[in-house]
Amino acid sequence: MGEEVQFIFNTFSFLIWGGLVMWMAAGFTMLESGSVRTKNAAVICLKNVGLYSVASIAFYLIGYNLMYVDVGSWIGSVRFLYGPSADEVALVSGQAEAAAAVTANGYSVMSDWFFQMVFVATAASIVSGALAERVKLWSFFAFTLVLTAVIYPIVGAWTWGGGWLNQLDFKDFAGSTIVHGTGGWAALAGLLVVGPRRGKYRRDGTARTTPPSSVPTVTLGVFILWFGWFGFNGGSQLALGSVADAVAMSHVFVNTNLAGAAGFIAALVLSRPILGRVDLLGGLNGVIGGLVAITAGPDIVQHPWAIVIGAVGGVVCIAAMRLLEALKVDDVVGAVPAHLFSGVWGTLAVSIAAGGHFGVQLLGVVAVGAFAFGLSWLVWMALEKTVGVRVSDRVEQLGQDVTELGLEAYPEFVLMPEQDDEL
Amino acid sequence: MGEEVQFIFNTFSFLIWGGLVMWMAAGFTMLESGSVRTKNAAVICLKNVGLYSVASIAFYLIGYNLMYVDVGSWIGSVRFLYGPSADEVALVSGQAEAAAAVTANGYSVMSDWFFQMVFVATAASIVSGALAERVKLWSFFAFTLVLTAVIYPIVGAWTWGGGWLNQLDFKDFAGSTIVHGTGGWAALAGLLVVGPRRGKYRRDGTARTTPPSSVPTVTLGVFILWFGWFGFNGGSQLALGSVADAVAMSHVFVNTNLAGAAGFIAALVLSRPILGRVDLLGGLNGVIGGLVAITAGPDIVQHPWAIVIGAVGGVVCIAAMRLLEALKVDDVVGAVPAHLFSGVWGTLAVSIAAGGHFGVQLLGVVAVGAFAFGLSWLVWMALEKTVGVRVSDRVEQLGQDVTELGLEAYPEFVLMPEQDDEL
Amino acid sequence: MGEEVQFIFNTFSFLIWGGLVMWMAAGFTMLESGSVRTKNAAVICLKNVGLYSVASIAFYLIGYNLMYVDVGSWIGSVRFLYGPSADEVALVSGQAEAAAAVTANGYSVMSDWFFQMVFVATAASIVSGALAERVKLWSFFAFTLVLTAVIYPIVGAWTWGGGWLNQLDFKDFAGSTIVHGTGGWAALAGLLVVGPRRGKYRRDGTARTTPPSSVPTVTLGVFILWFGWFGFNGGSQLALGSVADAVAMSHVFVNTNLAGAAGFIAALVLSRPILGRVDLLGGLNGVIGGLVAITAGPDIVQHPWAIVIGAVGGVVCIAAMRLLEALKVDDVVGAVPAHLFSGVWGTLAVSIAAGGHFGVQLLGVVAVGAFAFGLSWLVWMALEKTVGVRVSDRVEQLGQDVTELGLEAYPEFVLMPEQDDEL
Repeated sequence: MGEEVQFIFNTFSFLIWGGLVMWMAAGFTMLESGSVRTKNAAVICLKNVGLYSVASIAFYLIGYNLMYVDVGSWIGSVRFLYGPSADEVALVSGQAEAAAAVTANGYSVMSDWFFQMVFVATAASIVSGALAERVKLWSFFAFTLVLTAVIYPIVGAWTWGGGWLNQLDFKDFAGSTIVHGTGGWAALAGLLVVGPRRGKYRRDGTARTTPPSSVPTVTLGVFILWFGWFGFNGGSQLALGSVADAVAMSHVFVNTNLAGAAGFIAALVLSRPILGRVDLLGGLNGVIGGLVAITAGPDIVQHPWAIVIGAVGGVVCIAAMRLLEALKVDDVVGAVPAHLFSGVWGTLAVSIAAGGHFGVQLLGVVAVGAFAFGLSWLVWMALEKTVGVRVSDRVEQLGQDVTELGLEAYPEFVLMPEQDDEL
Repeated sequence: MGEEVQFIFNTFSFLIWGGLVMWMAAGFTMLESGSVRTKNAAVICLKNVGLYSVASIAFYLIGYNLMYVDVGSWIGSVRFLYGPSADEVALVSGQAEAAAAVTANGYSVMSDWFFQMVFVATAASIVSGALAERVKLWSFFAFTLVLTAVIYPIVGAWTWGGGWLNQLDFKDFAGSTIVHGTGGWAALAGLLVVGPRRGKYRRDGTARTTPPSSVPTVTLGVFILWFGWFGFNGGSQLALGSVADAVAMSHVFVNTNLAGAAGFIAALVLSRPILGRVDLLGGLNGVIGGLVAITAGPDIVQHPWAIVIGAVGGVVCIAAMRLLEALKVDDVVGAVPAHLFSGVWGTLAVSIAAGGHFGVQLLGVVAVGAFAFGLSWLVWMALEKTVGVRVSDRVEQLGQDVTELGLEAYPEFVLMPEQDDEL
Repeated sequence: MGEEVQFIFNTFSFLIWGGLVMWMAAGFTMLESGSVRTKNAAVICLKNVGLYSVASIAFYLIGYNLMYVDVGSWIGSVRFLYGPSADEVALVSGQAEAAAAVTANGYSVMSDWFFQMVFVATAASIVSGALAERVKLWSFFAFTLVLTAVIYPIVGAWTWGGGWLNQLDFKDFAGSTIVHGTGGWAALAGLLVVGPRRGKYRRDGTARTTPPSSVPTVTLGVFILWFGWFGFNGGSQLALGSVADAVAMSHVFVNTNLAGAAGFIAALVLSRPILGRVDLLGGLNGVIGGLVAITAGPDIVQHPWAIVIGAVGGVVCIAAMRLLEALKVDDVVGAVPAHLFSGVWGTLAVSIAAGGHFGVQLLGVVAVGAFAFGLSWLVWMALEKTVGVRVSDRVEQLGQDVTELGLEAYPEFVLMPEQDDEL
């Protein structure tokens, strides 16, 4: 097969699967918007469109260079803006003689940029759901800027950028730890700084259930994410220019699908003993848990293992939901359970299922965790000490939609008065 | 063109169009969730995510083997699990010498598995909508397991698997009968065993209209299905590795789109005489009817015929909605009209529009109908005699969401008390 | 690379990206359905499914021929129906010897038809949102028929069809003016004929805000549009059969994404001074404004320029929202600001950012505007003088859903009585 054909296949793969990962931003938005109470359903939409926009610009301004350009062990290039190679510019300007040099790169550099950019947006999406209903809008955007411009890119430099963890042969195909772990740690740090929602815990310490505003909207979000995950994992083959790539991508698709399905079934069946009832929201989060878990190694585990990894990922997710609740860490959508806990499981499971090095996998989990959690915590604390990270009690009670936007999510609908049993 | 390039095109086609068919699961979910009353809108979400998960696992465990592996006239291989060929495993493990043998297959075997799997999920989706609002959750899943593991795969073995109907040259390109008919017959059998919803028919025999919970959600579902249908029909070319395949796929896209559009217009315009008013839900179901109708032959009918087939498909659909209502068969979303009735029309229309053998087409319709309906009826009856298939009157009155899940779909919204005029 | 491979790449590109543009129809539907009041949320769904259907049929019956076949300076062929070439028919009928002639065309003709058809549907979608809540259903469909069969195709003939504007080297890559401008002008003409909604302006001339029925639904619509825009702009490269095409498509993706992100951020940040508050709906419309603005030249502007063009596009959009309100032009969803105003900016910006000829760009904007606005106004006036374009006061007060469809969008939900302060 000619190099030109390979170039087109590789580039097309980045674009089409990258587009599908971009679509996951809508999935997070629907999942989160349907999970929060109606009084915060508009602000969470704003946060999600905003975080995607901020991530797009930040990764263009600085993030990609930090992550991929001239990476040593720890960090790439501290330089502004990223653009096509001179050869690409020449080629699209009509200088056909540049074609050979462009082709030799194997893919269009900006198609890769696009594919990597939608991944950083995914990491940022994880944070918004966990901290919903009480984090300040502009503080959230400020954190998002740091996460997408600096924190995630540095983790990425260590791994996909070719840094020290990559040199140790740390395996994380599409980012159980790199994307989902980083986002999960950033969310967890935020949860500890921001604290639980007003009224989430009763005086006796038990947790109150807050009603989701729309279960069908949550379900739509999960389907969007599942659909998008084929782009997320499939595209992470990073090439389609050979028969081997096409075969590997097919295996990735099947493993991804089996893991999501197994995650749902396992979480649903075990939701009764673990969460106390047949729990749809638990089952839906189990889909995410299963998908996150398979993400570290969908290219190398065999299909039956994908079912096991996904099922355990789903169960880990709902067990972690219960654990966080017991610890009074108030994660509105169960983002930390699904992305962080199931991501840790998935990263370690690669070494069990496909013979990677357990110690290296564990080291990667711990190192990324220490860095992403630590730096996120510092940023959240800095925001807390300066502009504040949490809305006032009054805003929280009335909802962020009316108070921060002067807009209700469902203005014409008559809503139940909130059950404020102990407030 | 080299074999390798063909291999990649064929495989990529399975993956991208298969992904789009997976997305149809979200379309069914939205269509059904918006069509049922709010008190059952969460359970129908659960059923849809669950049926997709069950279909994924069941088709992996046994279904694909029954349908495609060593098919004689009637049935494939009774064997557990399906996986990549030894050559594929060798290739992705780095043994480059396996490439030639892999390439000779023309596509990655697991990409084909993925594409076929999302089709069985589609068939199962048809059942959930028809039986909404009164079928027991776990009985529905049990039926789904049999449908996706056994019933659909055997119908598939007769046809796409190379069995007796295929040998007679039965034409059903993307499954007007094989997918939509099988799903429709399974739903009809369920409808007869489960019976109409409490209060659907007044004492004088007239039918009550049950309000859809959200018309925009239904509309979203129809758009998702229409979008996904390009994958469903386009991908059913099963190859993209030649100019002829690319041309055929283009014709399929255009026919699919024209049929959906014609189905909508015809159903909307004729909804006044047939259904008594300009009926949006009838028009939307007409889209589905038009799409189902063209599905049997989008590769071989000419474009003007696609408009005719789609328009008639839309009208057949709304006429069948009225017929079922008169027969007191209570299909909540009109799934049997759209998928079974319009599917029969489409399967027969191939022989009218493109010169297939009418007798063979009819035989296919009847044989699949007898088998799928008969076996489905037995399964539904077995479930009825053991665990029961229908929720109690109290559950039906209160809704399955609260009673089976302890969760409302829209917990914060104030809802109308139900108009229980004669209950 | 062989011609056959190029043919497949080009055709596949039309199909996959055209499919994604079709999906934008769902985006417009959600955006509009969520933006109108609940009493009109079902009719706007009907209008959107209907306009897509009408556009599909009209462009098949006559539009494509007018736009692309034997175009002189002003208009293509006045002839009914469009279909595959005789060579394509022969090839898919099994005559392999036709392959060479088919291949020489570079792509399947019907894949191009499909891609062009979804663009005309996009233009029509713009009109429905602007005129929501008071335009008569069947008058709207009648206008849509003329727009998609005649008006848009003639504008298209001047430009993409090879007519006089194209000969002057007017640059409008994916249709800032050709698609979004034409739709915007058609909407503006309709707005002037139909007039503002009853009660939109108080006696003192100030505008009342009408509540959107569902903010999350609007947000979903914007995400669908953003996702679909990669197909809209990326596919407008019209080829993927060379390295240069793949590179150009990658640049288009990145510019499209940056412009949407910048449009959101700029519109959100400036919404406080311009619209009086941090305005989510303004920000969301800013995404559309940014995307429309980049659409004229995403292939030739450099990435930093995409940020500038998108940001200005977003700001132009919200400034125009305020301007129209002051002029008492009642555009329900801000379609004219986003598609027409930002489209004008984007079309002119090409000459600023990439050295096109400003005079020609301006001429294109003015000529398309004069023709599209003028002819649209005549059609709207003709409809007004015959069947009428506006529903009665009573219908407007009760909502079109109940009066024209006998159906509510959310029948079970209890809604607020409308605040009819001065009516």
